[in-house]
Amino acid sequence: MDTIVTSPRLPIATTERPPEGAVINAAEVRLMNAYWRAANYLSVGQIYLYDNPLLREPLTLAHVKPLIVGHWGTTPGQNFIYVHLNRVIKKYDLDMFYVSGPGHGGPALVANTYLEGSYSEIYPSISQDEAGLRRLFTQFSFPGGISSHVAPTTPGSIHEGGELGYSLSHAFGAVLDNPGLIVACVVGDGESETGPLATAWHSNKLLNPISDGAVLPILHLNGFKISNPTILARIDHEELEQFFRGCGWTPYFVEGDDPDAMHTLMATTLERVVQDIHDIQVQARTTGIPARPRWPMIVLRSPKGWTGPRMVDGLKVEGTFRAHQVPLLVDHAHAEHVSQLESWMRSYKPEELFDAQGRLLPELAALAPQGNSRMGANPHTNGGQLLRDLLMPDFRVHAVDVPSPGAVVASDTTVLGQFFRDIVSANDQPRNFRIFGPDETLSNMLGAVFEVTNRQWDALEVPDDEFLSPDGGVVDSMLSEHQSEGFLEGYLLTGRHGLFNSYEAFIRIVDSMFSQHAKWLKVTSELPWRRKIASLNYLLASHVWQQDHNGFTHQDPGFLDHVINKKADIVRAYLPPDANCLLSVFDHCLRSRHYVNVVVAGKHLMPQWLTMDEAVIHCTQGLGIWRWASNDHTEEPDVVMACCGDTPTLEILATVSILREHLPDLKIRVINVVDLMRLQSASEHPHGLSEVEYDELFTKQKHIIFAFHGYPSLVHRLTYRRTNRNIHVRGYVEEGTITTAFDIRVQNKLDRFHLVQDVVDRVPGLGTKGAYLRQLMADKLIEHKQYIDKHGEDLPEIRNWKWSATA
Amino acid sequence: MDTIVTSPRLPIATTERPPEGAVINAAEVRLMNAYWRAANYLSVGQIYLYDNPLLREPLTLAHVKPLIVGHWGTTPGQNFIYVHLNRVIKKYDLDMFYVSGPGHGGPALVANTYLEGSYSEIYPSISQDEAGLRRLFTQFSFPGGISSHVAPTTPGSIHEGGELGYSLSHAFGAVLDNPGLIVACVVGDGESETGPLATAWHSNKLLNPISDGAVLPILHLNGFKISNPTILARIDHEELEQFFRGCGWTPYFVEGDDPDAMHTLMATTLERVVQDIHDIQVQARTTGIPARPRWPMIVLRSPKGWTGPRMVDGLKVEGTFRAHQVPLLVDHAHAEHVSQLESWMRSYKPEELFDAQGRLLPELAALAPQGNSRMGANPHTNGGQLLRDLLMPDFRVHAVDVPSPGAVVASDTTVLGQFFRDIVSANDQPRNFRIFGPDETLSNMLGAVFEVTNRQWDALEVPDDEFLSPDGGVVDSMLSEHQSEGFLEGYLLTGRHGLFNSYEAFIRIVDSMFSQHAKWLKVTSELPWRRKIASLNYLLASHVWQQDHNGFTHQDPGFLDHVINKKADIVRAYLPPDANCLLSVFDHCLRSRHYVNVVVAGKHLMPQWLTMDEAVIHCTQGLGIWRWASNDHTEEPDVVMACCGDTPTLEILATVSILREHLPDLKIRVINVVDLMRLQSASEHPHGLSEVEYDELFTKQKHIIFAFHGYPSLVHRLTYRRTNRNIHVRGYVEEGTITTAFDIRVQNKLDRFHLVQDVVDRVPGLGTKGAYLRQLMADKLIEHKQYIDKHGEDLPEIRNWKWSATA
Repeated sequence: MDTIVTSPRLPIATTERPPEGAVINAAEVRLMNAYWRAANYLSVGQIYLYDNPLLREPLTLAHVKPLIVGHWGTTPGQNFIYVHLNRVIKKYDLDMFYVSGPGHGGPALVANTYLEGSYSEIYPSISQDEAGLRRLFTQFSFPGGISSHVAPTTPGSIHEGGELGYSLSHAFGAVLDNPGLIVACVVGDGESETGPLATAWHSNKLLNPISDGAVLPILHLNGFKISNPTILARIDHEELEQFFRGCGWTPYFVEGDDPDAMHTLMATTLERVVQDIHDIQVQARTTGIPARPRWPMIVLRSPKGWTGPRMVDGLKVEGTFRAHQVPLLVDHAHAEHVSQLESWMRSYKPEELFDAQGRLLPELAALAPQGNSRMGANPHTNGGQLLRDLLMPDFRVHAVDVPSPGAVVASDTTVLGQFFRDIVSANDQPRNFRIFGPDETLSNMLGAVFEVTNRQWDALEVPDDEFLSPDGGVVDSMLSEHQSEGFLEGYLLTGRHGLFNSYEAFIRIVDSMFSQHAKWLKVTSELPWRRKIASLNYLLASHVWQQDHNGFTHQDPGFLDHVINKKADIVRAYLPPDANCLLSVFDHCLRSRHYVNVVVAGKHLMPQWLTMDEAVIHCTQGLGIWRWASNDHTEEPDVVMACCGDTPTLEILATVSILREHLPDLKIRVINVVDLMRLQSASEHPHGLSEVEYDELFTKQKHIIFAFHGYPSLVHRLTYRRTNRNIHVRGYVEEGTITTAFDIRVQNKLDRFHLVQDVVDRVPGLGTKGAYLRQLMADKLIEHKQYIDKHGEDLPEIRNWKWSATA
Repeated sequence: MDTIVTSPRLPIATTERPPEGAVINAAEVRLMNAYWRAANYLSVGQIYLYDNPLLREPLTLAHVKPLIVGHWGTTPGQNFIYVHLNRVIKKYDLDMFYVSGPGHGGPALVANTYLEGSYSEIYPSISQDEAGLRRLFTQFSFPGGISSHVAPTTPGSIHEGGELGYSLSHAFGAVLDNPGLIVACVVGDGESETGPLATAWHSNKLLNPISDGAVLPILHLNGFKISNPTILARIDHEELEQFFRGCGWTPYFVEGDDPDAMHTLMATTLERVVQDIHDIQVQARTTGIPARPRWPMIVLRSPKGWTGPRMVDGLKVEGTFRAHQVPLLVDHAHAEHVSQLESWMRSYKPEELFDAQGRLLPELAALAPQGNSRMGANPHTNGGQLLRDLLMPDFRVHAVDVPSPGAVVASDTTVLGQFFRDIVSANDQPRNFRIFGPDETLSNMLGAVFEVTNRQWDALEVPDDEFLSPDGGVVDSMLSEHQSEGFLEGYLLTGRHGLFNSYEAFIRIVDSMFSQHAKWLKVTSELPWRRKIASLNYLLASHVWQQDHNGFTHQDPGFLDHVINKKADIVRAYLPPDANCLLSVFDHCLRSRHYVNVVVAGKHLMPQWLTMDEAVIHCTQGLGIWRWASNDHTEEPDVVMACCGDTPTLEILATVSILREHLPDLKIRVINVVDLMRLQSASEHPHGLSEVEYDELFTKQKHIIFAFHGYPSLVHRLTYRRTNRNIHVRGYVEEGTITTAFDIRVQNKLDRFHLVQDVVDRVPGLGTKGAYLRQLMADKLIEHKQYIDKHGEDLPEIRNWKWSATA
């Protein structure tokens, strides 16, 4: 380690250790408790009230929302955490923000950002007065309003509370290369039972205490999910402590239900953990030795629905699953509960918290940090604000020399790896570009990046390890697609750049994470205060057509189908046919903003088709006629041969060379598609071809034989509005397992022999020549089958095939 | 607990404790080591050899496969485990099978099932002689052969090694309600970094030591993934032990690389853990107290590629990541490696292991168990053999009384819950039906099942808990879709019945698990020896149209799109419009075999349309004209109004009632679709309508206005081959978040007002009446918007709407 990275806002600035005993006095406890009461009051108000926000008059059913939906259970605990984090932020001038893992903590984060002022700055109509309070309450879980979980609309959030499990991954992604940042990550004990969260505890084996910031996990152990208890709340204390020590953390326990005692304990504990983080960072940064620390974490065990109704209609509520959602039903059928709601709300004594105008009292408001130190205003949480363009080296220097189409072979991703290497180098100080993946960087042939960086790893090393380092820029050292995706999302959301490099089939593991991120992008693009972030780029290699020995389980090109269901202004899909196109496409993707770009590419040696100049033009157009392979010249062709993806392109060209040899009079137009969304109508996708353009290219009624990388139905789905209905698509139809590269195409009928038959079967007027060719192809298929059965490899004429247009 | 379940094959039969010291003598070590050498020899042979299987002549390049693909790294360790499991199976007459979690242990499982004889019984051509050996070697990772991971073709396997992370969930699913069974589950240390595996360690909080069997996890700590080290191999021993104790296990460590010492240690340890399992089960079953045990597990730390080449070309291989796949390249470019391969293979001394005919020597063969005790022949691993039909109570007794269409409302899933309750009761002794899910049983309104059973839970309980019990039949007490899916798969694969009850949006979390299960079903249906198992049934409730307060993150109907990409003979999708249809559909699904059935259903109060008799007929047909809503009588209609899903059905009927009021001359045909695959062509799906049937119903060219539950493009995709192209589909288009039930339809244009406009815009000849109606609908949309902005709820005419056909 020769670089010691520091930051002006690092906790390193503090040198004194805190006292061992209580760190706050009774007066401070009173103030903090009042602030907490205010946050709890606002939370209950959001869930229940339609009017009378300060209870200036006796509460009646008319003041209560007609439909009460919201989640109280997790809220008071999160309010408690927030007020205590505020204290240490102020005291130590910390650069900290808050990730709310428990699904439904919406009211807490909204209440706290409102109290600290960041909410009203973004939403001026939710002002810090009685009128604003009324609107604050009304909008919650109300038509046209805000959701009951933390959402893109919530200031200070990079993490949405709908689908659970990704909070820790997001938090770790956020602190990578942010040495001055601490992310306080509240993990719900329900959430902690998800797979993604369970493995995310081990993220601490990667973190570099020198060049990364710190994550402070706070397990919110309030005991229940929707209606079941949580596992971590129902094991012995010793077992729980062993679990976290076994995950490499130093756990501190804050347990109880008496507010005053809990305030003292939480303040003392937080003081200690902030000091631990400080000590760890000082130690690593002054010695330059990044040996893996046992980072601190907090276990906060408090009652679910703390300070809420203890009993309702004779049933215990506080501290039980019944506090999860709305603990007290108040409606016409339960009008008698109005008074219980009123006493609950008055128990927070709003008259001691807010002034006559409905504004938080100054001595309480003073507890919150100021300006960008407020967690609701932390610039990292609106990462587009911090986003700098990547320094993009010239991808053209990696061009594969293609003297004529198909004259040379190359591994597309190997070439791309060299471009990535240059990007890594160019953006290393300060680093704002990273590659994420589940140990597939080398397998996907991107090894060139290890010439200039390593994998991030801060656990034990042994002599024969390769490319490991605590400051590595590639994060592929955990075998978890969930972690790769979560880290990358956290990295992007805090204003940096990157990509996820995966096997094509196994990206399906994060289908739902992609969905949630796409939804986040859609909503934030509609919020003027949210700045655009860098696109989420997927490189899907080791794809469906390259699974010789892995077979059936490794074949799934359906991520494209999934992606395309999302909003058209968010998603892009590219299938470059060769290395030069792949370079051009990735250059474009890494410069783009606020999209999800899916790029499918091969890693095996495959023929190269276009020169760099041709590739740039082709990729800019997104699709186009390959004149050198076509013989329709300026006339309308007899048949359109379309291809999308490296393997379909190869087979279409092989098909065309057979056709041109045997049916020289057949006028063939070859179209290659790089940008899949060009196929869709312009009315549906911004990249879509207009009807006129499409008809011009694909003709209005000539037969189109389309060889597609993925499931054939996707092309039908994209083109169903088009005039030309004579489209016949071949693609992956779930056939074939352990076999040769060519035979898998045969089994799915995407091979040249079947494709020639497709043409003969559809194009009219081919007569006896056509019939002869059809039979020839049938013979070829038999010959192929016999040959691989005998030799275990493809016919020499397949292995040695080269493009030539004999006609 | 009043029932103590025992089994004749329970280890309970053994009463003596093993000696504390070594349990095998030197002679036994020699024999076991020889058996291990045989398995290792066969594994290397599979990866490399094309001929000369017993090395009867000096090895040459001609004997080696042209393309060597396979995975050596994990194989010798798994061979080691297998031979030791064989010993305890024989000694204690255990009912045990083996789950191979590490991705690529194929050669090990094939080698061992071959040695024990189960392989040749299933595949007679792979005989136990030299000819069989040759074929055994040739087929591996060879075109038309078997894959390099454990697959459906592997005897004794219920778990495929392609996509990692589900071994423990499968193992736990298998032992539920199988008190005599022990599943030895080998967990790879790479696999252990996946989310699903990480949370699966906590499955022990659910297991009932009385009525369930035992899972014996064996963490195979061989240190490396593809090219990275593994995290659990690179933390301190103390930390690793704390981790497993924190997960509730009692870990035993078997660590080393000296074969003899390791044999002794492994045998002694296995003796101990089998005894622990026995003691735990005896204790629980004799006292009837199922208090959570600290079940034993084993950590086996052995070198990756153990006994393989130590060094290749000057680089260390054994014990490094380089041993992961093929440790020694042998081809024309590396011809000098032939002799190294030969010495490696000869190091196992095949001449001491196999007789002149190529058969394993009798004293070695005697080490394996016999008959069904062999892990490759365990009946649980071919679960269809053990499958008994469910006892199906009459679903008709739960029929909702529907005096006329739309006259009453009901919650469809609440009604279904009562049917489930009866099924649970009817199949309780011995239990072979379970409901799985992530704590959503109550939220999805299936609470009736808790009248007769509980949730399975064996951790701490407190007084206010509800419906928890160690012998509960509902497994919804972990918040993990991965666990729900994995448990269910394990339960089904071992010959039982069940369903996964999920929120519709979050089923996407297991997209890839569904894919792998569908692939398993496809492949096993092509293997004559694999018996059909019960279908995997999904109940997707809390669906996209019922997310008032959860909003955008909870909206994703795309699982249907995903499912339909799989083979048509495996997947089925049903969208019953009301409770009676839902009952009929689920009755059918639970009787079916070897499918994946996806059922989407609502939980909110919704109008009911069909009597039970009508529902049964309608669901049997899968789709049909609703005559009572149509006015086309025997003529061809002017427009076809089609609907699929409960919410679209409601809106189509509301649309029809508006149309019939305002345009009484318009001839309307209403078609409701329950079985989605009826839309596809008969040539593509066994349920598909023929072209004639489709044209008869949907007409050849009249406009079809189709209101669909999911993404509109799915209907286009299913119908693109149909004659009638005048199909206009409305569905979910990713719009709307926190709003009313009706407004979310408006935002996605699936509401009655937009649908009326769709008709007016498309059907010709409606003249001024049509124009007037169009304007009326536009006014209604404005009125709707103004009303919810003001009142936060839908217009009274929407809330109180009832079906009537005025014309």
